[in-house]
Amino acid sequence: MTEKDSLLLSLERLIDQNRDQWLKEYKKFLSFASISSEAESKPAMQACIDWLVDYLKQMNFHVELWPTTGHPVIFASNNRAGTKQPTLLIYNHYDVQPVDPLGEWNSPPFEPTIREGDIYARGAQDNKGQCFYVLQALKLLQEQTGTLPINIKLCIEGEEEIGSHGLGGILKNKKSELKADYLAIVDLGLDDPHIPAITLGTRGMVSMDVEVCTATTDVHSGYHGGIILNPIQILVHLLDSLKDKNGRITIPGFYDQAETMSDEERALVSFQFNAVEYHRITGGYPYGGEKDYTALERSWIRPTLEINGINGGYTGSGFKTVIPAKSYAKISCRLVPHQDPRYIGELVAKYFKDNAPTGAEITVHIHPGQGKAVRISPTAHVVKVFAKAYEAVFGIPCQYILQGASIPIVPELQETCEAEVVLLGLGLMTDQIHAPNEHFGLDRIKKGILIMAQAMDLFKK
Amino acid sequence: MTEKDSLLLSLERLIDQNRDQWLKEYKKFLSFASISSEAESKPAMQACIDWLVDYLKQMNFHVELWPTTGHPVIFASNNRAGTKQPTLLIYNHYDVQPVDPLGEWNSPPFEPTIREGDIYARGAQDNKGQCFYVLQALKLLQEQTGTLPINIKLCIEGEEEIGSHGLGGILKNKKSELKADYLAIVDLGLDDPHIPAITLGTRGMVSMDVEVCTATTDVHSGYHGGIILNPIQILVHLLDSLKDKNGRITIPGFYDQAETMSDEERALVSFQFNAVEYHRITGGYPYGGEKDYTALERSWIRPTLEINGINGGYTGSGFKTVIPAKSYAKISCRLVPHQDPRYIGELVAKYFKDNAPTGAEITVHIHPGQGKAVRISPTAHVVKVFAKAYEAVFGIPCQYILQGASIPIVPELQETCEAEVVLLGLGLMTDQIHAPNEHFGLDRIKKGILIMAQAMDLFKK
Repeated sequence: MTEKDSLLLSLERLIDQNRDQWLKEYKKFLSFASISSEAESKPAMQACIDWLVDYLKQMNFHVELWPTTGHPVIFASNNRAGTKQPTLLIYNHYDVQPVDPLGEWNSPPFEPTIREGDIYARGAQDNKGQCFYVLQALKLLQEQTGTLPINIKLCIEGEEEIGSHGLGGILKNKKSELKADYLAIVDLGLDDPHIPAITLGTRGMVSMDVEVCTATTDVHSGYHGGIILNPIQILVHLLDSLKDKNGRITIPGFYDQAETMSDEERALVSFQFNAVEYHRITGGYPYGGEKDYTALERSWIRPTLEINGINGGYTGSGFKTVIPAKSYAKISCRLVPHQDPRYIGELVAKYFKDNAPTGAEITVHIHPGQGKAVRISPTAHVVKVFAKAYEAVFGIPCQYILQGASIPIVPELQETCEAEVVLLGLGLMTDQIHAPNEHFGLDRIKKGILIMAQAMDLFKK
Repeated sequence: MTEKDSLLLSLERLIDQNRDQWLKEYKKFLSFASISSEAESKPAMQACIDWLVDYLKQMNFHVELWPTTGHPVIFASNNRAGTKQPTLLIYNHYDVQPVDPLGEWNSPPFEPTIREGDIYARGAQDNKGQCFYVLQALKLLQEQTGTLPINIKLCIEGEEEIGSHGLGGILKNKKSELKADYLAIVDLGLDDPHIPAITLGTRGMVSMDVEVCTATTDVHSGYHGGIILNPIQILVHLLDSLKDKNGRITIPGFYDQAETMSDEERALVSFQFNAVEYHRITGGYPYGGEKDYTALERSWIRPTLEINGINGGYTGSGFKTVIPAKSYAKISCRLVPHQDPRYIGELVAKYFKDNAPTGAEITVHIHPGQGKAVRISPTAHVVKVFAKAYEAVFGIPCQYILQGASIPIVPELQETCEAEVVLLGLGLMTDQIHAPNEHFGLDRIKKGILIMAQAMDLFKK
């Protein structure tokens, strides 16, 4: 038995011994209704911050609360390992999504409840669960060895679910505080609960509102049908024209900046996709997007354009003989490396304006909070170390995957701390994040503690 | 001076003398909130019915209240002219549209207010105003001559604004009561306030709900964008494909039954369209519909397909990273003579189903209350008589126009009463019917009384 193995074994024992204690703390963390998007949750946000600050201080961390335009960022550091040891910055967030529709929860979202090895609560996974195993690793490592093997900085923000604007706004003033050798974004997951995986990239994103206006007033569809321009007809035509029959986006220049993945890089990533499992989870079929690519290629390494919302005219029950004056759509593009979100947003806006028919006025509002794609090399030291940690805990080789979603703060945060970044976590597609009955496996809390502790030990020089 | 002219002159005098009295009665009629679509308006509906029944009885009419599945039909008759005289059946309705948005009314919708010769109230025109001048003509004719020149039947229904289902359901049991020589539908209007006009036809209509379902749950657009089918994308593609680049409807067979108007018929109808005035009223441009036809041809003698409502996904403020499981649209087709509404509805439904991509389930629900188009010959006696009456009152020749909207009950009612039908009225596009600040000109009340009285006199053998 190697020294590494013995660390894991003794930590595992400690986790089991302390189960009641950490479960109590985890449940406490989950009990705060820290919903960043709701003004009435402010007291719960504050209570959550107070609890975290106190918890970190008890773990021998120096803690700072960084004010932002919105909810504060919790910054904590323990640099006792000394200047010869590297510094790992870990990113998490303490805010959670709203809980609607409340009626669909089988137990109240802020009263954590364990059923068959899973804990059910809003934030159980995203991101309090993933934050908690990081904290627990730091606590148990110190309990076991009296110290931490490397220097640790924690950046726990309170606005991830609403676009990270607060953190984004203060980054350039916090360059020295955030300086690190490695940056771990612990807000991701696995494709299969039994196979360890590290995420080598996320897509970028830009989203926008499109409004088509053809008149100053809604009119009667009997009198005006066939005469007046119908803004819904114009909108559906423009939206339909955004893609050709092979699902390829037709906007001139849309793909120009997009990185194409080399066969070499592609060989390192597991693109295995289980269509049966996918249908079981979503009730849907993987028939969307570009015809020339497989499902996970379309999600991971190809940019997309999706219509996220549309409305116009009468949408209640029955019927109303109306042609509206306006129609609306919300669209978003997921982006791959080298695509600039702002530039792509403007290309899309230009397309709408260039193709507006005479008599229709089109307004496009690009939302703030767009973000670039992230792509990491599997040869980076930080990736290799975490891969080893995952392998040690799972007992099988680590896979490399990608991520179709976006974490817009990552590129800016990485630029600020000047560290090698890695994207990781233990989330699963079935965890119901952002939905009723969000849950996380207690076995994954345990694995998370072990992986984080093991990686910190591996980083030690 | 002919006898006819003297009738008009003495009636005009009577109208002016009685102004205070009939204005009081008209305002009373308008004060009832007889909104057929709102359950809470039931007491107001009843009060309106009671008032009308009482008013008609005082006018020497035999009155019956015909129960229906919804609001009752008021049937009134005065057959004292005897069997040698013809019978004219006049159709009106006592129900009105809802008043939302209430805040945009300059005076309360059920407190009739006169401003610059116009009376403002919900129903001021549609249809209480047009019903009121019919009643007033009958009252004043009797006041003047002690009798009515012909037999008169009145059918005043309470569900025109919600599809006339009640009246439609009892027609076959009321065949003998409704039997008439002529049927006047007094719910239409003029294109120009200074030019008399009779309407030679309305379009038919069929409307439906379309639902596209691609999954059992909404999903995250980051993880699933590019993989899953997007039901909004499918819906906009299908809706866009319903028309070609010239605005022609592409559904196979859609135009097969449609009547083409002969040059001879066309020459009788005034297709003059004022685009400047149209823009002033709607703020829109007449650039919709089929490219090969003029604005009023598109509205009057060509079938159309309009999208009246669309929704799906997130439509609130800001943005949500969602791909919904379902999307919805409401569409309607306006039809010309010989097009069967049910058949056309089924053609459209079939088109959606035939073109649904694999993995998407499409449901089409055709609404009840569809109606056929109506087309009347200008050589019909009933048309000639009313044209003469209009000319006598306006002092210039009567135009023939058509109507893009639909009155679904007309074909059924005509079939029941076996009469020659005519479509008429004194409404204007600017009356704001179905909208805030509906109004009607008091000068048109006066013209309406004169036209109706004159026509009744002309029908007399």
